[in-house]
This record gives sequence, structure tokens and C-alpha cells, in this order.
Amino acid sequence: MTTATNQPVPAQLVMSLCDGDRGMVDLLGGKGANLAEMTRLGLPVPHGFVITTEACRAYLALGREPAELEPLVADRLRELEAAAGRRFGHPYDPLLVSVRSGARFSMPGMMETILNVGLTDDTLPGLAARGGDRFAWDCYRRLVQMYGRTVLGIDAALFEQTLARARYEHDVADDGGLAAGTLRGLTADFRRILVEHAGEDLPQDPHMQLVRSIRSVFESWNGQRARLYRAHEGISDDLGTAVNIIEMVYGNTGARSGSGVCFTRNPATGAPGAYGDYLSNAQGEDVVNGSRVTLSLDDLAGLQPAVHADLLRHLDTLERHYADLCDVEFTVEDGRLWILQTRVGKRSPAAAFRIAVDLVDAGYIDMDEALVRVDGDQLQSLLHPQFTPGGRSDVVATGLAASPGAAVGELVFSPGAAVIAAAQGRQVVLARPETSPDDLAGMLVAEAVITSRGGLTSHAAVVARGLGRACVTGLSDLEIDVRERRIVGPDGLILAEGDVVSVDGSSGEVCRGRRDVRPSPVASALQAASGLGAPPAEAAGAAAVVRLLAHADRRRHLGVRANAETLADAKAAKGFGAEGIGLARTEHMLLGDRRELVERVVTNTGRDEALARIEELTRHDFLEILGEMDGLPVVVRLLDPPLHEFLPDLVELSTRAAVSDDRGQHDPGLEHLLAVVRRWHEVNPMLGLRGVRLLAVVPELLDAQVRALGEAVAELLSLGRHPRLEIMVPLVCDMEELRRARTRIEAALTDVSRSRGVDLTFPIGVMIELPRAALTSGDLAQSAEFFSFGTNDLTQTTWGISRDDAETSFLGLYRQQGLLSFDPFDTLDERGVGRLMELSCSEGRAARPGLGLGLCGEHGGDPASVRFCADLGLDYVSCSPPRVPVVRLEAGRAAVLADMSGVGSDTR
Amino acid sequence: MTTATNQPVPAQLVMSLCDGDRGMVDLLGGKGANLAEMTRLGLPVPHGFVITTEACRAYLALGREPAELEPLVADRLRELEAAAGRRFGHPYDPLLVSVRSGARFSMPGMMETILNVGLTDDTLPGLAARGGDRFAWDCYRRLVQMYGRTVLGIDAALFEQTLARARYEHDVADDGGLAAGTLRGLTADFRRILVEHAGEDLPQDPHMQLVRSIRSVFESWNGQRARLYRAHEGISDDLGTAVNIIEMVYGNTGARSGSGVCFTRNPATGAPGAYGDYLSNAQGEDVVNGSRVTLSLDDLAGLQPAVHADLLRHLDTLERHYADLCDVEFTVEDGRLWILQTRVGKRSPAAAFRIAVDLVDAGYIDMDEALVRVDGDQLQSLLHPQFTPGGRSDVVATGLAASPGAAVGELVFSPGAAVIAAAQGRQVVLARPETSPDDLAGMLVAEAVITSRGGLTSHAAVVARGLGRACVTGLSDLEIDVRERRIVGPDGLILAEGDVVSVDGSSGEVCRGRRDVRPSPVASALQAASGLGAPPAEAAGAAAVVRLLAHADRRRHLGVRANAETLADAKAAKGFGAEGIGLARTEHMLLGDRRELVERVVTNTGRDEALARIEELTRHDFLEILGEMDGLPVVVRLLDPPLHEFLPDLVELSTRAAVSDDRGQHDPGLEHLLAVVRRWHEVNPMLGLRGVRLLAVVPELLDAQVRALGEAVAELLSLGRHPRLEIMVPLVCDMEELRRARTRIEAALTDVSRSRGVDLTFPIGVMIELPRAALTSGDLAQSAEFFSFGTNDLTQTTWGISRDDAETSFLGLYRQQGLLSFDPFDTLDERGVGRLMELSCSEGRAARPGLGLGLCGEHGGDPASVRFCADLGLDYVSCSPPRVPVVRLEAGRAAVLADMSGVGSDTR
Repeated sequence: MTTATNQPVPAQLVMSLCDGDRGMVDLLGGKGANLAEMTRLGLPVPHGFVITTEACRAYLALGREPAELEPLVADRLRELEAAAGRRFGHPYDPLLVSVRSGARFSMPGMMETILNVGLTDDTLPGLAARGGDRFAWDCYRRLVQMYGRTVLGIDAALFEQTLARARYEHDVADDGGLAAGTLRGLTADFRRILVEHAGEDLPQDPHMQLVRSIRSVFESWNGQRARLYRAHEGISDDLGTAVNIIEMVYGNTGARSGSGVCFTRNPATGAPGAYGDYLSNAQGEDVVNGSRVTLSLDDLAGLQPAVHADLLRHLDTLERHYADLCDVEFTVEDGRLWILQTRVGKRSPAAAFRIAVDLVDAGYIDMDEALVRVDGDQLQSLLHPQFTPGGRSDVVATGLAASPGAAVGELVFSPGAAVIAAAQGRQVVLARPETSPDDLAGMLVAEAVITSRGGLTSHAAVVARGLGRACVTGLSDLEIDVRERRIVGPDGLILAEGDVVSVDGSSGEVCRGRRDVRPSPVASALQAASGLGAPPAEAAGAAAVVRLLAHADRRRHLGVRANAETLADAKAAKGFGAEGIGLARTEHMLLGDRRELVERVVTNTGRDEALARIEELTRHDFLEILGEMDGLPVVVRLLDPPLHEFLPDLVELSTRAAVSDDRGQHDPGLEHLLAVVRRWHEVNPMLGLRGVRLLAVVPELLDAQVRALGEAVAELLSLGRHPRLEIMVPLVCDMEELRRARTRIEAALTDVSRSRGVDLTFPIGVMIELPRAALTSGDLAQSAEFFSFGTNDLTQTTWGISRDDAETSFLGLYRQQGLLSFDPFDTLDERGVGRLMELSCSEGRAARPGLGLGLCGEHGGDPASVRFCADLGLDYVSCSPPRVPVVRLEAGRAAVLADMSGVGSDTR
Repeated sequence: MTTATNQPVPAQLVMSLCDGDRGMVDLLGGKGANLAEMTRLGLPVPHGFVITTEACRAYLALGREPAELEPLVADRLRELEAAAGRRFGHPYDPLLVSVRSGARFSMPGMMETILNVGLTDDTLPGLAARGGDRFAWDCYRRLVQMYGRTVLGIDAALFEQTLARARYEHDVADDGGLAAGTLRGLTADFRRILVEHAGEDLPQDPHMQLVRSIRSVFESWNGQRARLYRAHEGISDDLGTAVNIIEMVYGNTGARSGSGVCFTRNPATGAPGAYGDYLSNAQGEDVVNGSRVTLSLDDLAGLQPAVHADLLRHLDTLERHYADLCDVEFTVEDGRLWILQTRVGKRSPAAAFRIAVDLVDAGYIDMDEALVRVDGDQLQSLLHPQFTPGGRSDVVATGLAASPGAAVGELVFSPGAAVIAAAQGRQVVLARPETSPDDLAGMLVAEAVITSRGGLTSHAAVVARGLGRACVTGLSDLEIDVRERRIVGPDGLILAEGDVVSVDGSSGEVCRGRRDVRPSPVASALQAASGLGAPPAEAAGAAAVVRLLAHADRRRHLGVRANAETLADAKAAKGFGAEGIGLARTEHMLLGDRRELVERVVTNTGRDEALARIEELTRHDFLEILGEMDGLPVVVRLLDPPLHEFLPDLVELSTRAAVSDDRGQHDPGLEHLLAVVRRWHEVNPMLGLRGVRLLAVVPELLDAQVRALGEAVAELLSLGRHPRLEIMVPLVCDMEELRRARTRIEAALTDVSRSRGVDLTFPIGVMIELPRAALTSGDLAQSAEFFSFGTNDLTQTTWGISRDDAETSFLGLYRQQGLLSFDPFDTLDERGVGRLMELSCSEGRAARPGLGLGLCGEHGGDPASVRFCADLGLDYVSCSPPRVPVVRLEAGRAAVLADMSGVGSDTR
């Protein structure tokens, strides 16, 4: 008798490499999907299968393996045995496997790996038969070491110390010099460490080894390091990792074996041609961890020409197939090449631009695709100033140029010291013999990282490139002494903690002291492309940037303006391609020497003269700026900050007065000033008497500003110029406020209009920087020709966080504790602030078709925020002048990405 | 040849009284609609017509009369002439008319009136033929005076001074004593004032008088006083006013003539029976402006019994027809009664309740209608404490009890002085000989108003009753000397500005000094109705309130809780009918003596002992409160304020340290404390380290609170009680914060649970007080069993206004300048804050059906805000204990009003 089955579709918990492809990255993780793809392409990939992310998620949700998993793994393992021709746990010729994590997104060094799983006292002789005693014991001690560290959580240093002692006792430079007997002894020592520190030995059941290893990979997903990395990269915690179970192949079976890591092009410069590191008689981890000095691919060609030729052929296949830079791990076992892993390779920002354009020229991709392959953060890092060439510099060592950039900072020797110093606002350079994932927190805050060991593919190099930090590796002349916190070099060189060094990640030079910097060649090339100045000599490398930016300009719908209130800033903005000024903060013109003018207005001492002087200075400033920006829009924001910012500090003044009183020296002037400062003091100035609210108390100050602007425009018009002034009213929360401000502005302009005999009608707009302004946008649009989102203040009020205070108190702690995956003051908070913006845009435009929409907060320079603004259909964003190219690029990318996803940023 | 007409429906610019009814109040204004209604009822109303609000709006929009208006007015004027049997401008028996404003909403004394329009040198003899020379000249001088003041904007004092001089020269007490010749001279004097101050004389063309008068009524709509009144009352500026053109009838033609103002019931107490003021040989304005002492209706019965009987009959007709208290103006011309105006009468709060219930008992209305006829503001004023009877009191004078209430304050003599003193936080009593609309700003801020002249229908009395201010009028024993700013009374009594007086608006007594107060009888009656204490002796008057509140309780869906954190508050809350505590602010338990405990935690001095003590004190406090509220929910908010509120003031401490240093007396303890205070100082504490954010820095403090709450509940459970604790997390802006806080709370409760062996699972909720919390409500609801809107903070951040600062700076100015029609901290801002609440409710409930929704800001006690909350479908609002009855009433009204409008507050 049969019954109708009504079960859900079974989850895909396990999959053979032969059944997958690279489209299955969500299910198989990046590593597994790429292995499957290479299998499909016929590349020499070891046999294996993948336990999927679905299985991981089920494990993490249940707190144990789902019941279906074990029989599925057993089935696949039987298939693997058949394909490999070896049996798992077989004493004569055992199948050994690697167990590796492989998540959706590459997380270098984050997740766990266990090699040689299946090796036991029983199967050891069989492995020895394959590669000799020394090889077999080396494999065994590695398994015990990795299992102890990863599965049992034992401190890695315990194994390293034991190894170091053995090297010392046997007087060998590296582990390769240790004899079979020594390795056998080490294996026994390591197993004692397991028993002593974890209360259990390495399981002698190969299947138990496998189960425990898989479980530890699952659990490593929620490890502290992994969470920190994900928080920094904005990767969801819900994805889980796949686990790759792959037949072991060995690079450490002798001189005809070895392991390597390579790229299809140079990942630091983007130059064509395969590029990589190779180590004879070594396993892959020896190459990556930088503990031995590597050979180049050319060296491999000399050692094993056939293998080298095969490798180059496979690299070409991969680059054509992926149409991108590929990063490949390979092993040679007894002259036979195995490709162990590939992925689209990380690259330096400069390389990203060059590779993208080169791939277009090679016909692999089109310009749209090239544009998507680079991003604003990369461009930003290329715009950083560089060290002035030829300047005096005290080069103390030259290593490998692992990640470009010029950085100056105080030396620190631990991630902890780096975090503390950075929190104090100091710039630091992190020096380590080599880095590990434990150093990530320090790398995040350091200006640069230097290591004495490791190559271009070392952990330090890969992570620094990803973060856009300058990095020099392989500084083998320097002893980086972490315990004594100093660097010891040739000729008695000593650099102590706190000493300032300059690190050039582009040349590999490390200098003592502070070097001079100059604009980057890319920045100069961009200025030249705007017709300002001659292109720099090195502009050839910057040509890719110029080409991609030009394409971005063709594609983007979003305008780009700059925040500027000096002639120099206005010039710089134009040089970087700004299409106007989106925010001129008039208060910046009233600070410094001019602060006392506002003080005189507020304290009523020579008020009228002060007002007249403010008007005259403002007129003069805007005559210059509007003149410079002739024909381009200039949005001028009326006075915004609380008045007490122009007055002396209350605490300072109070103590001065108290001391003076205590001495019996009564000072009436001081008393008067103190009274005024007390009168204007506010408990929460951010929420106080600012912006349009000043109209209620010092309307004359705003009148003076508007008249000055009107006069400047009238003057320029009389000279036949084309000033395009727009006046913006800050901190509006109610339509009546705006209506009154508008009336007053128009009255002041009418006065100037009459006296100068010209028509002075400008767009008058409102800064949307309070939630209520956003919520009443339909009302405000009736009295505004444009909106400009002031997302700094809008974020402060929407979140209820004072930016001034939060960084030093809880917001920093929140970031450290992983409570916030982003800083809302850096990246626009789409769920909260962004939602208010959407509402404001749609209701504002509904009330006034053609309403201008811009953004002028600091988010204007943030790539992710620019994409949000483009998708929202804003007319422009405004950012600091040096960010203008970044925003142009991101705006172009946003348009391309919107087209690709079918969501048009031009469906406004 | 005819062409198809395609014109819009012609606007209704003018309408005869015979054609309208009281439903046309939008078009005819209140006065015109009621005149039309009375005409329909057959009451003796003078003939006339109404120029509609539509005409006014057209005039204000165009800046001139619409072209169609003039011929329409001419037509109606011809009809009026026919009905009245007199011709406008006719020399022998001229028709004269009054021109009066009449807006949609009653605006007492706000708008302009011109009488006797149509009187010229030519028509004067005709009028004299009707009522004698003296009468005719008195009419003429009144016309000139009103025209000069209203149409030409001449200072009223100029005419009054001239009149006063004439009274002095002729040694008469009031204008009635002036002879015909004197009045003729005065008319000439007044016309000279016109020419001198406005450059034009009274037009001798009657039609021109009419046109100019109509125009000035239109324009008075936008006068300063009218705008101020509308801003205070929340009346739209867009409505416009109608203009009533009514045939003149005269109360000043001799002894058988007179004018009066009356009510169908006593408007101060609500007692049944007609009630009013009458003056023989006088026009209506003489009654209202209080310049002569009035007679009662009983006096009228003696003088003219037939007129009195007619009047009572008409009053009864009106009250039955309107089913409400009516306010009637009438004139008797030569023994013939004319009803000039009626409207639903203003009444004191006590009268409102009594009248509503009496009308139910009379069968005129039902209880729902009665409930709608009263409101929370009225109830609130009845709950105010009263003067203790029998206490020693120095009564200096007794006048008319014009508006009930007990008030104590410093004497001021001008609206300006009142506004200034009130802004300084002082309580004032405004003393004026009589009040005019110019005094409104002062009346708005005064505790009480006293006048030496005027009756119960005087301007002072009417406005004070509307505002709920105590008022005593007709203090004829006192000379209120505004110039010398003092009151001079019998027996050498002198009261100077700043002297404290106690005003009893219920008895009419004014006392020197401060009198003791006691709870109101209504409050006592409510407590008695809750079973607490005996009903007060005077509870009969409070019975109406008790009945209406009971009906409100039956009708309402909205729960009412109280904000309380002491045992006394909890008891009071229950006495007033609270159904739980909606907000217990734990920080209130850590102020005063206990402040130093928090200081010790923050400064790390005896931290552990301090934490233990905080835990013990909190446990004890909540044992009491949860015990008192047994079986009712108690929402406890975890520590909310910034920590520095528990520390000494930075400025004070800095000056102390600076002085100490300056004297060479270095104080290490002080230095340490100063360092801590500096560390915790914030630029914008409102947006700083508060609420749930404290978890990042002092989690132990919150643990101690939660454990204490758990212990208190466990203790009560062990005693067989039914504590219903709910824990609320403040200042959340992101779901991760809430998730972490919840985890920590649950962990602390689990500890207590285990040690006490009881199950401690409570609803955990979140305070929605930041825009981002509202905007991410769907996320927050996943970790919250309830939301409570903290509308104080939500208003601060949505508007970007610091409540602490704004009142003393711009917000007060905004209110004065009419820029804001309401204070968002008093009344919930529906367009901004309310919109966030709507979004939060709907998305919160969508994410978690059954999510609890409450409000615990101070808006919880505001009637308009309560209605908004009821319509929004909140489960409850929480308010201060004394506001609980007000909220019960308003919640009931909201349900009734929603049923009436078809918008159910139960369509949740």
C-alpha cells in the first residue's frame, strides 16, 4: 500500500563539483562554485564535493547537523573514493581530504581550513608509501596542528613554539629542514598538547575527523574575526558558509612538487602578464603565510617548464572565461599540476582602472562593464597626495610595493596600540613581522602596514589592498621586534614605538621621518582633462581613470556640484569637473578675523558699523566666487550656526570672571560679555536658535547677507557676466517660517533691484535637514524652487545623535561592538534618513513639478550614498571639491547599474 | 443670434435675511446665519441683508470689490428700503443701517461695527423728526466717531478725550447727560478730528459711507488683533468675514427705549432661567462696553412688562430651537422689542457641564450630544484647586463673579507688563478699568483679570470665560489707575504693581495677599466616585461632571494610564480612574538624596556598594508601587537621562577649580571630579549618551534596575498578589540596540527567576521617541511587545527644537508673531510628529499583530492630542494623574465624534 507523500522539496545540502557551476555561488560559496566551474572547463581540479551554505544555515539554526546531512555526505564520499581511486581510512592507500570553508563573499584568512583529514595512526603507513616517511609525518603533524587549533580552539602559539624549539634544536632555518624522526616526535608532542589543553586526542576514526572538521567550519562563521570582517564589509551575517571537501594533493612530496599562488595580471599595477609566487616542496599555506621567501613564476619556468606552460595556458583560459583578473592557487605533485582554487582577484585601485580599460581594449568587456568594475573608493585612494619625488628622504629599507599610497604615521607594533592611538586622533603605521586575521582591527585604523616577511599575496598585502591602505611587505632587512616594540635594522638603525615613518606603498620605500607630499598624478591628470594645467609626466598610468570618468560623465543623470566658499575651493571644484556650487556656507566667511563682527552685532557694540562691514565683505567674497563660477549655479546658504559660536566660550569666560572677582578685580566689560554669553548659551545648541530661526532675533544680519548677494549679482550683470545665484534657507521646520523668510529675502532683493535698476529674481530654496521639513515637503514646496537635503543634520535629528558627542562616546563603541554595521554620518542611512528623503522628493515634486532636488551633506561624497541619490532621482549632489571625481564616477556607475537591474535612475 | 454661455456658476455675493438659514454659516457668517434663522422663526428681527464671506474672500484676493458686487448691493438695498418703508439718503425719513462684521466663528470684539450709516447733514433733520434733536445728534456723533476710528483708523482716544472734556465741562456723569447742542458741537469737533488726522471728512454721500464701511469690515479681517485671536483659537486665516447690513433700530430714543444682552440660562453657573443686563435709553455698545452700570432683566420687567414677557417667550423659542444656551442682543425702540442677534452662548466650564446634563434631562439632547458639548479644557479648569473657605482673608473688594476659578498673582496694569512678567515665569493678575481687544495678549498670559467697570457680558468677562481664566468685573469701589500703576480703594487702600492678590472668580472676591487653596469639589467628587473618600458637601454642582464622565467611560475605546513613580502619585492616579501606570521614570527615583549614588557609579568611587544600594532602593520603591497598582499594568522605563545630569555642573565646578588654583590651593579631589564631569560633558546632551545607549558604558546600572524590578515582582507573587510589570527601553534608534537590550534584560530576569524559583516573563517594549525608531517600526516590533510614543522627545527631534532652550528664545517669539498657531510641545503636531506615529502604528502592527500601542509624552494630557490618539487606534495614553479625568472625557468624546463623522476609532 502506498501513501501520497506530501514532503517539502528536500534542501540541497551536498553537491558534487561535477554538478555545479559558478552561478551557484549562493549555494556553494565562492570557492566551491569556482571549483565546479573549473571542473566544467576541464581544468585539472582535484575531485571533491561541497556541503552547501544551506546545510550551514540549517546547522546554525538547529545547533546541530540536520539529520539528512550524514547519509548525503557518506554518498558523496563514496563517489569521491571511486573517482580518486583511493578509500577514506584505507590503511594502504588512504584518501585524504581537505576541509575548507567557502562563503559567498571572499573573506581572506577569515575562515578555517583543515588539511589531511583522514590521516590516522592506521592510515599513516599508506601515506608514507606514497611520499615517504618524512612527508607522511609532516602531513600528520600538520593535521594535528590544524585540528588542534581549529576544531579544539587551542592557541596556535603553543604549536608554533614547539616547532620553533625543534628548529632551534636541529639548527634548521625552516620546517622543510626537519627530519622524519623529528616530525614524528613533533606529532607526538602536538597530540600531547591536544590532550593537555582540550582534554582529547586527535580522533583515530577518519569519519569523526571529518565530522568534527565540518562542524568547526560551520561554527567559524560566527567567530569574532569573521563577524568583525563582515561588519566592516557590510556582508550579511545570515549567509553562512559552504564547506569544500576536496581530495588532497601534495606540493610537499619532494623537489618535483611545490605550491604557488598567482594572478593573471599584476594586481598592484594592473600590468599585463601572469604574476605570482611559487615555493618548491611546500604546501599552499607556506606560500600565503609568508614564512619562506618565494620564487617567481619565471623561476618555476626554469624548474619545471612543462608545468609552467600548462599553468600559463590555464591562466589564459580562466581570464578569458571570467573576463577578469583571476587569482589562482595551484599545487604541483610530482610534476603534475593541480589547480586548487580560483577567484576574481583583488587588485589595487590603480590596477582596477588599468585592468578594466585593458579588458575593454582586449574586447573582453564593454565600457559599461568596465565602469561597474571600478568604484569611487578606489578612485578616492588614487586621488590621495603622494610623496614629492626627489625630496630629501631617509630611506631605511625597501620592500615589496604591496599596496600603493603614501602614508605618514607613528610606529605601533600591535593592533591594540593602533586602535588606542587612532582613537586619540593619531595617525599610525602598523609594523608586524607578518600579519594574521588577528591584526585586522589594527589594519582598519592604520594609515599603512609594513611587514618584514611575506610577498605580494601575503595576508598583509591582500587585506591592505582591499582596504586601500598603503602596504610594504618583505622588508627582510628589518627585524620587527614586537615584544620590545622597536625595529632593528642595518647599521645600528633603531626605530622605536612613536617614531614617525613615511611609507610609500607604490615604491616599497620606508623612510624615517615625515616626507613631503604632492597631488597624485591622477588628480593632476583630471585637472588637465578639465583644461587646467599640463598633464603630469606619469599621466600614462592615469589615462585609464580619465577614460572611465569620461564614460561615467556620458552615462550619469546625476549632476555634481561642490561645497565651496572660497575662491580657491571654487577653482579646485571646477578643475575636478564640478558643475556648480551646491553649498556655500556663509558662516565660514564670518569666522576667523571676522568673528568679532558678529559678536558686535550680538552684543550691540557698534552694531550698525559691524552690519555694514559684514555686508561689504560678503559682497566682495561673492563677487569673486560668482565670477569664478560664471554661468554655473551657486547655492548660497544663509547664516546657519547658533550665534554663540561667534562668542567666547562660557566655561572659559566664567572661570576668568570668577578668578578676576576672587582677586577683587571687578571687570565690568567682562561681566557684560559674560551676561551676553549666558543669554545666548543653549543646553542643546544643535536644536536651538539657528538657521531661519535667527530671523526672529537678528533679521538685520540676514538682510545684510541677502543685500550683499544681490549687490554682487548686480555688479556682475553690469559687467556682462552670467551669475547664477540660488539662495537657500536653512533649518526650516514649518511652512510659515519659510514663507516669512522668503518674503524678507524678496524684500531685500527688491531694494537692491530698485537701487541698481536690474531684475534680481533668483531661485529660493530650502534645506531639508529636519524630519518635519521632510514630512511637510508638500507644504514647503509651495514656497521653494528647490530642496537641498542637509543630511548631516537630518541624520542627527532622525537618529537623535549629536555628531559632536557621539564619536567620543557610544557611537565608536557601537561600531567596535558590531552593533552598527555602518556609520550613519559616513553612509546615508537608507532605512531611516533615506526614507524621509524619498517621501520628501515624491511629495515635494507632486506639489511643484520641476522642483529642484539636491543633496549637500557630507554624504554627497560617499559612493554608496551617491548611488542612493542617483536612484532617488535627485538633480545633483554636492560634495567637497576633491570628492567631485569620485561622485562623477559613482553617478555614472549608478546609471549603468540601474540600467542593468532594470531600475532606471531616469524614471523621474 | 445667441451664443452658448460657458460662465461659471455666479458666486453668491449678497443674500437677503429672508433667504438664508443657520446652515449657511460658512457663507453668511455666524451672525448673519442666525439672523436669517430668527427671521425664519418669525422673531422680530430688523430687515437686512448679508454680504457673504465669498465676497470678502474675493475682495481680499483682488485687493478691491469684485465688479459684480455693487449692483447686487444696490438691488438688496432697494428691497430693504421697500421692507422698511424708508429710503436710504431720504431727507425726511431716512433709512439708516448698521454695518457689522460676522465671521464663521465668533470673535468677540475682534471685528468692526459702524452704526447709523446713511446719516448726513441732509438726512439729519429726517432722523430728528423720528427721535428728537438730541437723539439725532447723538446718532450723528456716534457715526462720525465710529467711521473715524474704523474706516479712517484714527486713534479712539482722541474722540474719548473730547467726549470726556465735554462731560467735565457740562458736569455730567455719562454721555446720556449731554444736551443736543453739546452733541452737535461734539459732532463738529469729531469731524474736525477726521479732517485733521485723516485728511478727509465724513462722506456726505450715504452710498459712499456704505461702501467705505463695508470695505473696512473686509479689511479688518486681516487686522493684527483678529490675526492674533485666530492664531490663539486655531481658526483659519482663509475664511473671511461676512458683512451684515441691517436696518437701524434705536434704544436711545428715550425712556421707553433701551438695549440689553441676555442669556437663556446663567452662563456662569448654568442655573436655569433667563439672565442678562439691560440699559434704558442706550444703544447696545453701551451695555457691552461696561461704561454704565446695567439693570437686570427683572428691572426690565418692572419698567416694560410687555416687552419683558415678549423677550422671555422669544428666549424660550430660541433655546428650544437651538437646543442650547443662547446669547441674545435686543433693543427696545419706543416699547417695541427687536432681536438684533443671537448665537449659542459662551459659558463657564461649570455651566457647560450643568447645562449639558440639564438639556438631556429636559429631553432636548441625548447623552452623546451632551458629551460633545463639553470638553477636557473645561473639565481641567474645574479640577483646579480652589480657595479654602473660611481661611483668613483680607477681602479688599467684591465685584461680579465673571469667570470662575481661584488665582493668585502679582498685580500688573498693562498687557505688556503681563507678557514680560509671564515670560519671566511669574504669575500675574491683570488689572484694567475695562478691557478691549488690545488687552488680549495680556489676558492670554494672566492667571486672572479684574476690572473696575463692566458686567457679566463685558469684553473682559466674555473673553476670560472663553480662556478659562478667573475674572472679576464691576469692582466699582476700586480705582484702577493704569498710569500710576496702582489700585486706590476705600479707607486709604493702595495696591501697587507687584503686590500679590488672590482673585476668586467664583465669588467675585479680590483679596490682598496669597490665600490658601484646596482641591476643587469636582475633583473630590470624582475621587468619591472612584470609592476614595466621601463626596464633598458641594458635590451637587459636580454631579453633572460625574454623570458625563461615566458616559465617557462607557463610550471610549482608549485606555487611560498615568505617569507616576511615587506611591502618592499611584494612589492619586487610581483615585482619578487611571487603569494603570503608563510611565514610571526610574531616574526620578535616583534624584535628590540618591543622586550621589549614580555619581559614585560614574566616578568609580564605591561603585559596587552604590550599585547594590540602587538595586535595593529600586526594589523597595517598586514593591510599593506595584503593590498599590495590583492587577493593573505598570510600565517602567529604564534609566533615560544623560549621566551628567547626576553630576555637578561643569561651569560651576570649573570656576570653583579655577579660583582654587588661582589661590594656590590645589585640590586633587576637585580636579578628579572636574575631569570626570568634563569626560561626560556633552555639547548636545539631548542627542547624546542617554537611554539604551547607556548600555554601552554602564550596563551594570541597567542590570541593577532590572534585577530590582524582578525581585519586587517575585516578592509580590510570593504574597499572592498580581503585579503586572512591563519594561520599556528608551531612546532606541536601531533594531540591534533593542535586540541587545532585550537580551540583557532577559538575562537579568532569568537570574532572578532562578534564584527566586518563579517565572518572570514580562512584556518588554520600546519607547518610540526618535524619528528613526518610528521609521523602522517594522523592525523594532520584532523585538518589542509594545510601543509607547515618547512625544516630548519625538517632537524635539522631529522639529529640531530643544524644549529647554526654545521657550526662552525663538519659540516664544514665534507664538507672539503668530508664526506658529500652536505649541508643538503642548498639542501634538499631527502633520509632522503625528504622521510618524501613524506610520509607526501601521508598520508596527503589520509586523506584530496585537502589538501594544500607547503614548506617554506630556501630550497625553492634551485634549486635542487625545482625540488624535483615539482616532489613531492607540490602546492607551498616559498622563499626569490630575489629567486622568480630562483624558477619560476626551477619549469618550473622541469615540462619539468618530461615530458621528463615520470614522470609527474602533476600526483598528
